[in-house]
Amino acid sequence: MDDLRSRVAAEPVARLATVDPDGRPHLVPIVFALLGDTLYSAVDAKPKRSRTLRRIENARERPEVTVLVDHYENDWARLWWVRLRGRARVLDEGDESTRALEALAAKYEQCAETPPGLPVLAVDVTDWREWSAER
Amino acid sequence: MDDLRSRVAAEPVARLATVDPDGRPHLVPIVFALLGDTLYSAVDAKPKRSRTLRRIENARERPEVTVLVDHYENDWARLWWVRLRGRARVLDEGDESTRALEALAAKYEQCAETPPGLPVLAVDVTDWREWSAER
Repeated sequence: MDDLRSRVAAEPVARLATVDPDGRPHLVPIVFALLGDTLYSAVDAKPKRSRTLRRIENARERPEVTVLVDHYENDWARLWWVRLRGRARVLDEGDESTRALEALAAKYEQCAETPPGLPVLAVDVTDWREWSAER
Repeated sequence: MDDLRSRVAAEPVARLATVDPDGRPHLVPIVFALLGDTLYSAVDAKPKRSRTLRRIENARERPEVTVLVDHYENDWARLWWVRLRGRARVLDEGDESTRALEALAAKYEQCAETPPGLPVLAVDVTDWREWSAER
């Protein structure tokens, strides 16, 4: 489990799936930091069109979200993915959001140079499922 | 639009989001072929545990699905993604599934060597949304 957590934590990008108000899945790539069993992502510092925050509104309304980290390469014997199911919390302020932004800055030099803003999306992971072509 | 379609078609991997019976988003990486406005993916030839077909069962029950193609690199000024929303159809047999498997074999040498099996999942794309950090 520690190995799995480390592997996920080291990946630069993941995909976050939430559910839109009409019941359709919504999908966006995220950069993230993993602290224990909680995955944090933030909205980048650039101005966003309102719809780009759909993930946040979705997570507030329907906090059961799914995150996928996957590895692709031409050698399909080396494909793997890890799917995380968890419960999202939107952090609009507070110590936990500060720690999350620090963790993002430690992982990504881009976040250290241009700190992302609030809110932070926290996902408390309850289910880790891994798949590997090698198995 | 042709440029966008070509860019998506050339990507080796995408992520497919469906909705589980309990209303939670489900997420899996897919290899795919794009023919016009329909995206095709298939289950690979290796035996699958039953839960790996969750995507197919989900698509039968709730055909409104979302597919994401995204590009990540260390230079965040070059990030982009394309999100496709569409309606899924499960092809258990027939000419369209044959054409889809041929298109997958033409795109991936792995599919030419070891043809994937049925069913084929077809997604008729109704909405193309692109985002680029450069804009």
